[in-house]
Amino acid sequence: MSAIPEDFVKKTTELSADVTRPFPNSERIYVEGSRPDIRVPMRAVRQADTSASFGTEKNPPITVYDTSGPYTDPAASIDLMRGLPEVRTAWIEERSDTGQLAGPTSEFGRQRQSDPALSHLRFEHIRQPRMARAGSNVTQMHYARRGIITPEMEFVAIRENLRLEELADSGLLKQHPGQAFGASIPQRVTPEFVRDEVARGRAIIPANINHPELEPMIIGRNFLVKINTNIGNSAVTSSITEEVEKMVWSVRWGGDTLMDLSTGKNIHETREWILRNSPVPVGTVPIYQALEKVDGQAEELTWELFRDTLIEQAEQGVDYFTIHAGVRLPWVPLTAERVTGIVSRGGSIMAKWCLAHHEESFLYTHFADICEIMQAYDVSFSLGDGLRPGSVADANDRAQFAELETLGELTKVAWEHDVQVMIEGPGHVPMQLIKENMDKELHDCYEAPFYTLGPLTTDIAPGYDHITSAIGAAQIGWYGTAMLCYVTPKEHLGLPDKHDVREGIITYKIAAHAADLAKGHPGAQVRDNAVSKARFEFRWDDQFNLGLDPEKAREFHDATLPKDSAKVAHFCSMCGPKFCSMKISQDVRDYAAKKGIGDISVAIEAGMSEKATEFKDGGSEIYSKT
Amino acid sequence: MSAIPEDFVKKTTELSADVTRPFPNSERIYVEGSRPDIRVPMRAVRQADTSASFGTEKNPPITVYDTSGPYTDPAASIDLMRGLPEVRTAWIEERSDTGQLAGPTSEFGRQRQSDPALSHLRFEHIRQPRMARAGSNVTQMHYARRGIITPEMEFVAIRENLRLEELADSGLLKQHPGQAFGASIPQRVTPEFVRDEVARGRAIIPANINHPELEPMIIGRNFLVKINTNIGNSAVTSSITEEVEKMVWSVRWGGDTLMDLSTGKNIHETREWILRNSPVPVGTVPIYQALEKVDGQAEELTWELFRDTLIEQAEQGVDYFTIHAGVRLPWVPLTAERVTGIVSRGGSIMAKWCLAHHEESFLYTHFADICEIMQAYDVSFSLGDGLRPGSVADANDRAQFAELETLGELTKVAWEHDVQVMIEGPGHVPMQLIKENMDKELHDCYEAPFYTLGPLTTDIAPGYDHITSAIGAAQIGWYGTAMLCYVTPKEHLGLPDKHDVREGIITYKIAAHAADLAKGHPGAQVRDNAVSKARFEFRWDDQFNLGLDPEKAREFHDATLPKDSAKVAHFCSMCGPKFCSMKISQDVRDYAAKKGIGDISVAIEAGMSEKATEFKDGGSEIYSKT
Repeated sequence: MSAIPEDFVKKTTELSADVTRPFPNSERIYVEGSRPDIRVPMRAVRQADTSASFGTEKNPPITVYDTSGPYTDPAASIDLMRGLPEVRTAWIEERSDTGQLAGPTSEFGRQRQSDPALSHLRFEHIRQPRMARAGSNVTQMHYARRGIITPEMEFVAIRENLRLEELADSGLLKQHPGQAFGASIPQRVTPEFVRDEVARGRAIIPANINHPELEPMIIGRNFLVKINTNIGNSAVTSSITEEVEKMVWSVRWGGDTLMDLSTGKNIHETREWILRNSPVPVGTVPIYQALEKVDGQAEELTWELFRDTLIEQAEQGVDYFTIHAGVRLPWVPLTAERVTGIVSRGGSIMAKWCLAHHEESFLYTHFADICEIMQAYDVSFSLGDGLRPGSVADANDRAQFAELETLGELTKVAWEHDVQVMIEGPGHVPMQLIKENMDKELHDCYEAPFYTLGPLTTDIAPGYDHITSAIGAAQIGWYGTAMLCYVTPKEHLGLPDKHDVREGIITYKIAAHAADLAKGHPGAQVRDNAVSKARFEFRWDDQFNLGLDPEKAREFHDATLPKDSAKVAHFCSMCGPKFCSMKISQDVRDYAAKKGIGDISVAIEAGMSEKATEFKDGGSEIYSKT
Repeated sequence: MSAIPEDFVKKTTELSADVTRPFPNSERIYVEGSRPDIRVPMRAVRQADTSASFGTEKNPPITVYDTSGPYTDPAASIDLMRGLPEVRTAWIEERSDTGQLAGPTSEFGRQRQSDPALSHLRFEHIRQPRMARAGSNVTQMHYARRGIITPEMEFVAIRENLRLEELADSGLLKQHPGQAFGASIPQRVTPEFVRDEVARGRAIIPANINHPELEPMIIGRNFLVKINTNIGNSAVTSSITEEVEKMVWSVRWGGDTLMDLSTGKNIHETREWILRNSPVPVGTVPIYQALEKVDGQAEELTWELFRDTLIEQAEQGVDYFTIHAGVRLPWVPLTAERVTGIVSRGGSIMAKWCLAHHEESFLYTHFADICEIMQAYDVSFSLGDGLRPGSVADANDRAQFAELETLGELTKVAWEHDVQVMIEGPGHVPMQLIKENMDKELHDCYEAPFYTLGPLTTDIAPGYDHITSAIGAAQIGWYGTAMLCYVTPKEHLGLPDKHDVREGIITYKIAAHAADLAKGHPGAQVRDNAVSKARFEFRWDDQFNLGLDPEKAREFHDATLPKDSAKVAHFCSMCGPKFCSMKISQDVRDYAAKKGIGDISVAIEAGMSEKATEFKDGGSEIYSKT
């Protein structure tokens, strides 16, 4: 009965082994919440025991945050044709404030659904969309403000804690005090804390009621720093199957959210496939699709067309919309003297519209209308930075900050509608100007979560902009940015391939984690401590497996010392078997233990230089006291 | 007459095209100083004119710092068998404070020179070493303190300025104010400023009198941030030819100094080849070779053996020595409780020696003797951080800081001998603890230049430690570190290949440059401004050529839009030809110019929100005033 041709089905249902291969020595586990249908996914990485030469010891499994969905779970049965299991449907239905529609209510959505020419592209088991009942507001912020802790809130609380309690006796929880720049990070995340943060707008849980497949996550500066990845087919070369595979690839490596920036012909259908199979929140830039509908003529965009696009996408289940409502007519000329003008695609679309009509942007004038649509599906705002700097030269200029102030004004409007908001940020910013961006965002936008692209800290390295931007991303994450939009090595040059996407994601996981450590997020150092201990004890496999990219670590190691025996060897290719610093450190330890030098260290520590002099004069006495 | 077998000669004299290929649309130029033999190398990158659609304009050539030596100069004739031209010989001879020795004075040097079995490995045109005359001190610091501006000092002053005066009318000098954390960066570097910085120990010019091939450079926090690369053959697989080729590869991509960390059998001969062909300062860790001489048995090291090794290497021309004289006996037990113990190879060698003998380190007790050797050849100290942390967990601990305090004490001793000093630093440090390292170093070591390895800001990404460390390197460079020791993707896993070395160098050039921008180094933003302008104007080739790695940028671009016509196209693969933000920005500019909106921007700027409201109410008036 399927109208989808055989070969398409086959391509679609078969994800490549590359994207679904389980992580080595790991298993996907589920932590149950207060009710059996709250099952929070994590990944547990098993470790080998410490060998006798380092003092025999059991090493506990390490729990890491897992965004990969059921794809890395060999027990899960994946059927792209049916989509992922509906984790949230019961929760949404229990709230009794939504109803199932008879079909899409957007004009475009109806058109696409009834077009027989599209039947081979269409997701088969399409669900009728759900919408708030008249007079209802179904956002997580609305519930939070009424004091309700939703299952989504409990889910993210459990998720953020990463079973740290299991490591209480392991010694792995030891970490340096953080410097949090005014963030209020709790020792342990409770559902009530989540509710409170969402209620005051300091965090968002992007979770459209039409995306029940979602495993909820939270974005806010008092939680773990998240990363976003982008996929999208600019050209016609990219097929639906390829787009779904890209999504799975992105969540595999750690993408917390995903923006679908497709601009092709069948973006409506592509989006449906992605949403039905995506375990992470999906964001879009609706103006891109609106522009497609007017064949690329920005000046022909209208509020009515844009409104229809919002409804179309909200009913498919898009979790957040980038809307460039801060690109106001008076700000546009402020960019005229810039080195790189307007570099945001959405920003320039709106600038062109404003100039062509000599009118204030319809996104700005209709902002309250937009909020009304968002609250009926719980779509979150990602208020776009259409005037972000595209070069170090243009950083922190009047155009950029005028827009940011407008985004703050709009945040208040959104919050009046209980609509969740995050704020997009730059871009290209040299290091000494990064903090001003964060401080101004916190002030002008009332601590709504900041979501930045990089920032790139220099313009001189095309081909390496994942790195120029990771330097800035780590810093702005430290200062308080809640989510970092990744940048790949192909930035400014071309479209990223699979290799670039992986490189971009791991780079951004590093930046986000470096920020978590620096902020002093409880338990952030566990994974570092575990990797370092494994490294010291020559547990090579554990060192690889606990890393962000076990496959690459192993491949790099094997390039120099390929044999399996080398992975249990107590030396490495850097120094070779004859001399090894790690081995000598162990000698120091053994020595210290035998001679009671631990105590003497304390004594030296106390008196420092005086003791040192005594010690020097006293020769070897210190070593012979026992 | 040569004892070198034919095939060896052939291999050695033929560097691969890969490492000598000139940079696209660039030429190596020489800026003459106060005398004709001061010829300071730079690279000038030519630019295309701005096309009519962006307002026809000539774009000046951009001068960039060039470490590549004559290898990228098609006019230079390279003969690895004879070594590079002797840039400094006349300068050294004029000072009349050195004499040519009859031959090597170290025992080992003499042995190697007279061993017939080594003749096929030996550099052919070996020079007799030079040494200070009795009672003379030949260090740059010594001259500086006596008020003498040496040609080396003038050379580096010209080099640091990068012909900025040529761009006075270009608009490219515009940049953001920096945040320099107490550095005293001059608007223009004069030879006198260089002298003063060297005299007070805030900068060093590593320049052994036996390395006349060197193109002098300076390391100090009031100058451009530099990077160091490491090469070395741990295994027997690496040949001399390969090592020389690695050196050329390293300077090609921007290595400012080079450490030869070889531990093989023929390191004396390899070092000679590298030095004779190296345009950049070469550093070593003499204890590595000393350890080879006692067949890896650390406890058998003696002061006499070490001393002979110092003289051996000083007479070959090594410019700086890493010496772990701060690893004192009382500090060793302080590492016993660490997660990763002692990770520095030199540090653990000395720790082992101290433990085995129950005695204070001979490097510490003989420090004044070492200074006397260094001053006779002008070898600079790189005081090693043998107790640096090998994990985030061990950062900023008592062991690390006790050693740093000792390095400060030793700095004073070296300066009493007018010996130049830089201080090595960590290692693994989470972001919030980085600044303490810099502040403490400046205080405890009296502003001697800091030279750090990274630091790595997290341990969880084996395979990506160039990135975990670039994040830390950019920050510590901003705070005041003078030179950054690169880290490659293979760190902790294996030996870097050519690809890894290039990746590591470009990553560190990015970190160093991001730091220069943040400190507000005059002219630092020129290259960023030029790349950005080229990007905006779709001068694709200029964008590639002005970047740190033109070859990779071009390759990435061509992967999506391979045709040559695409490189002059006014669009790119990211948005495609139909819609382009850069094009719209140009529309905004044209519009602003036509309608006089520049002035109106100023008016809006002045009154901001009030004006904005007026403007909103007034509709499109602003656009119709002319």
